Amino acid sequence: MVEEQLTQTFEDVHRLLEEGRRHEAAALIAPLLPPDQAEIFEDLTLEEQVRLIKVVEARQAANILEALDEDDAANLAQNLGIEALTRVLDEMEPDEAADLLGDLTPELRRQSLAQMSDQVEVRSLLRYPDDTAGGLMTSEYYVFLEDTTVGAIFNHIRAQPIQDEEIPYVYAVDEDGRLAGVARLADLIRAHHELPLLAIVDTQFVSIDAGEDQEIAAQLLNRYDLLALPVIDTQGRLLGVITVDDAIAALEEEATEDIYKSAGILSTRDNQSVKSDLMVRGPIWRSWMVRIPFLLVTMIGGILAGGVIGIFEEALETVVVLAFFIPIVMGMGGNSGTQSVGIFIRGFVLGQIDPQDFGKHLLREVGVGLGLGIILGLIAGGAATLWQGNPMIGLVVGLSLACTVTLATGLGFLVPLLMNKLNIDPAVASEPIITTINDFTGMLIYFMFASLFMSSLM
Amino acid sequence: MVEEQLTQTFEDVHRLLEEGRRHEAAALIAPLLPPDQAEIFEDLTLEEQVRLIKVVEARQAANILEALDEDDAANLAQNLGIEALTRVLDEMEPDEAADLLGDLTPELRRQSLAQMSDQVEVRSLLRYPDDTAGGLMTSEYYVFLEDTTVGAIFNHIRAQPIQDEEIPYVYAVDEDGRLAGVARLADLIRAHHELPLLAIVDTQFVSIDAGEDQEIAAQLLNRYDLLALPVIDTQGRLLGVITVDDAIAALEEEATEDIYKSAGILSTRDNQSVKSDLMVRGPIWRSWMVRIPFLLVTMIGGILAGGVIGIFEEALETVVVLAFFIPIVMGMGGNSGTQSVGIFIRGFVLGQIDPQDFGKHLLREVGVGLGLGIILGLIAGGAATLWQGNPMIGLVVGLSLACTVTLATGLGFLVPLLMNKLNIDPAVASEPIITTINDFTGMLIYFMFASLFMSSLM
Repeated sequence: MVEEQLTQTFEDVHRLLEEGRRHEAAALIAPLLPPDQAEIFEDLTLEEQVRLIKVVEARQAANILEALDEDDAANLAQNLGIEALTRVLDEMEPDEAADLLGDLTPELRRQSLAQMSDQVEVRSLLRYPDDTAGGLMTSEYYVFLEDTTVGAIFNHIRAQPIQDEEIPYVYAVDEDGRLAGVARLADLIRAHHELPLLAIVDTQFVSIDAGEDQEIAAQLLNRYDLLALPVIDTQGRLLGVITVDDAIAALEEEATEDIYKSAGILSTRDNQSVKSDLMVRGPIWRSWMVRIPFLLVTMIGGILAGGVIGIFEEALETVVVLAFFIPIVMGMGGNSGTQSVGIFIRGFVLGQIDPQDFGKHLLREVGVGLGLGIILGLIAGGAATLWQGNPMIGLVVGLSLACTVTLATGLGFLVPLLMNKLNIDPAVASEPIITTINDFTGMLIYFMFASLFMSSLM
Repeated sequence: MVEEQLTQTFEDVHRLLEEGRRHEAAALIAPLLPPDQAEIFEDLTLEEQVRLIKVVEARQAANILEALDEDDAANLAQNLGIEALTRVLDEMEPDEAADLLGDLTPELRRQSLAQMSDQVEVRSLLRYPDDTAGGLMTSEYYVFLEDTTVGAIFNHIRAQPIQDEEIPYVYAVDEDGRLAGVARLADLIRAHHELPLLAIVDTQFVSIDAGEDQEIAAQLLNRYDLLALPVIDTQGRLLGVITVDDAIAALEEEATEDIYKSAGILSTRDNQSVKSDLMVRGPIWRSWMVRIPFLLVTMIGGILAGGVIGIFEEALETVVVLAFFIPIVMGMGGNSGTQSVGIFIRGFVLGQIDPQDFGKHLLREVGVGLGLGIILGLIAGGAATLWQGNPMIGLVVGLSLACTVTLATGLGFLVPLLMNKLNIDPAVASEPIITTINDFTGMLIYFMFASLFMSSLM
C-alpha cells in the first residue's frame, strides 16, 4: 500500500479510536495486509494499540504481532492480558510465538505457555537461542515417513486448514526421524499417486545443524537458492525448517549490524544488535549509550597522538610549520585504514577471505596500501613543497604519508584477523583499535622523519 | 559441501585436467550441487574452465554459469565458442540468460541471440536495465486465464518438464493479460478440480512496476514475506515474476555497496557496484582506482585544516602546547560525524527516515550530538587540565570538542539529505564531504577558542 494512503488510514483509525468507535477502526484496517496493519499499529500509542487489537479477530491479531517490530510486539503482548494473549499466541506460527514468548517477562511466559494449546511445539522451539538455526526454525511443515504414498500425502494436505505461510516442500524421514529427502509440491503434482514419497524426493539436499549460527543458515539458503532449509540434530533427525523470509530478515539485521559497527555504533549488551529504528526514533540516552564507547576508545588514540607530539615539542617549537601537516598525516592514515577494515569485514562475512590463506590476503593488501601510499605521498609532498616553498618539508610529508598509509592498510587486515583468532567479533573491535593505533603511529612516523631531516627544515 | 572437501575435489580436478583426463574431471564434479561446482570453477584458470565445461552436459553447464560470479560467467561465456554457448544459453533460466547476454560483447550477443531457440522470451527480458524490477524478473512461471479449471492446470503442470527453480505460485490473468490474482500450489492441491482458477486465487496481491528499482522489489518481497513477486506494466499486465533468491542477491549487493561507500570505496563507473570479491582477489590497480577518489577528497580536507592552522601560526608559536590537542579535536569530530552518517544512510535505506520529516530527525540528531559533545568535552577537558596543569587549556579543549561534535553530528544528517535532494547518492558523497568539512571546521573552532583565551593560556 502506498505511504500516503497508509498515513490517511492511520489518521482515520486514530480519530475513530479517540471517539471510542474501535469496532469501526478495526473494520477500517481489516482489508489491509498484515505488514501495513502493523505499520499503522506502530504509530498508535500503546494504550490505543491494546484497545484496537482486542476487537480484532485472533488470527489477524496474530499476523499483526508477527509483522510488528520485536520490541513493539513484546510491549503490546505484555499489556494484552493473559487470556487475549494466549488466544493470539495459539494463532501465531510456532517459531514466531516462541520468539515473542522469549521477549516476555518470565512470569507471563510461564502463565501463557501453561494455557496455550500447542505448548509442546512451542516449548521445544524455546530451547534454542534466538540467533541459531534452531532459534529461526518453525515446526509447521509437511513431513511424512518415506514410504507414504503421494496420494496419501495429497489427502493429508487437503485435510489441513490453509496456513498463511505454507512451505512448498515435503520432507521424507525414515523410521528414526532422520531426514531422507526433500520434494517440492510441484514434483508431487507430477508424480503418480501410488508412488512412495522416497521415489520422488531429492536425496541430495542441503541441511543445517540446529546449533549453527543464523548467519550460516542465511548463507546456505542464499547460496543454494532454497525456499526453505531443514534443520537437523547431530543424528540427522529432522527438527524443523527455516523459511527464506526469516533468512532475509537475518541478513538485513547482519547488514545493519556491520554498517553500524564499522561506523562505531556498538551494542552495550552481548549478542544484541542495535536496531536501526531505535537510532532514528528511540530515546536519546540509548543513542548515547551505543555511541560513546567507540568515541572514548578513539579519544585515547587522540590523547596518545597528542602525547607523541608532546615528546617532539622541541622540534615543533623550532619548526612550527610541522603542525600544519598533522591533519593530513592523521587523516590519510585513518581513512585508508577504514577502507581496509571495510573490505576485510565484508569479504569475511561473505566467505571470500579465508583465515587459512591469511598471509596471501595480507600481502595483497599491503601491496595495495604501498601503491596508495606512494601516490598520495607524491601528491601531498608536492602540495606541501609548493605551499611552504621548501622541498624538504615536502619530502618529510610525502615519506610520512607513504609509510603511514602502508602501515594503516596492513593493520586494517591484521587487526580484524587477530580479533577473530581471539574470538572477538572483528566488526566491533577493529575500527576503534585501528583508529587508535593509526593516530599514534602516524604522529610517531611523521615526527621521526621530521627529526631526521631537522637540520634541513630550519 | 564442507570447505575442506571442496578444496580436495578442486585439487583432484586440477590434476586430472593437467593430465588431459577431462572426462574424469567432469565425472568428479557431476554429483556436486551447482554452487559447489561453480566454486571449483572459480579456482580454475580460464583455459581449464573452457576445457572442462565443454565435456559437461549442457543443462549442468547452464547451472554452473548461473551460479558463477557475473564477471567469471561472462569471461567463460566469451571463450566458449558460439555453438557451445548457444546450447548452454538455451538451457539457462531466461532471466539468467538475459543477464549473461547483457555482459557479452555486442557482436557475440547478436550472434548467440540469433541462434537461440527461445530468443523471443530472452529478447523481451533484455529490454529492462539490470538494476530494475524488469531486469530481475524471469519469464518462466505458471500463468493461466482466470477461468481455467484447477484440473486443467494440473494437467498442464504434469505435462511440463521439471524445472530447477520452480515458482510455487500460479498466476491468473484476464483476457487482456492483466493480473487478476495469485494462488499457491498448496491452495491448488486443496481445491476441487472443477473450480475456475479465479475462485481460489488471492485477489489482494502485491506487485511491482517493471521500471521500479530492484531495491524496491527486494523490500516488497521482504516486507510481505513473498516467495515471488509479479512484475506488471502500467496497464497492470503481467510481464514476469521476480523470485526471492534474486531479491536476496540484490539485498546482499546493496549491503556490500553501503558498507563500501561508508568506508570510502567508490565505483568509478556509474550504476556499477564494487564487487567484494574484486577487492579481495581482483587486480591491484582496480583496488587503487576505487580507493583513491575518496582519499583525494579527504586529503583536501587535511590541507584545508592545515591552512587554518597556518592562519593561527602566531598563536601556535606562542603556545606550542596547542598542537598537542589537534589530533583529539580532529578525531572526535570525524568519528562522531561518521556515526551520524551511518545512522542516516541505514535509516534512509530501510525507510525509517522520511525526508519530509527531516526537521524532526535533524533536531533529534543535534540533541544527541550536543549530549555527546558535552560528555566528551568534559572528559577531554579534564584530561587536558591534568596533563598540562592548566585549567584554561582544558576549557579550550572541552569547549572546542563540545562544539565540533555537535556540528559534526548535525552535518552527518544534513549533508546526506542535501545530497539526496540534489539526486546524488548520499551513501557515496557524504563521508568524504563530511570528513573534509569536519577537519576544517574542527581546527577553526579550536583555534578560535584558543585565540579568545590566549592571554590566559600563555
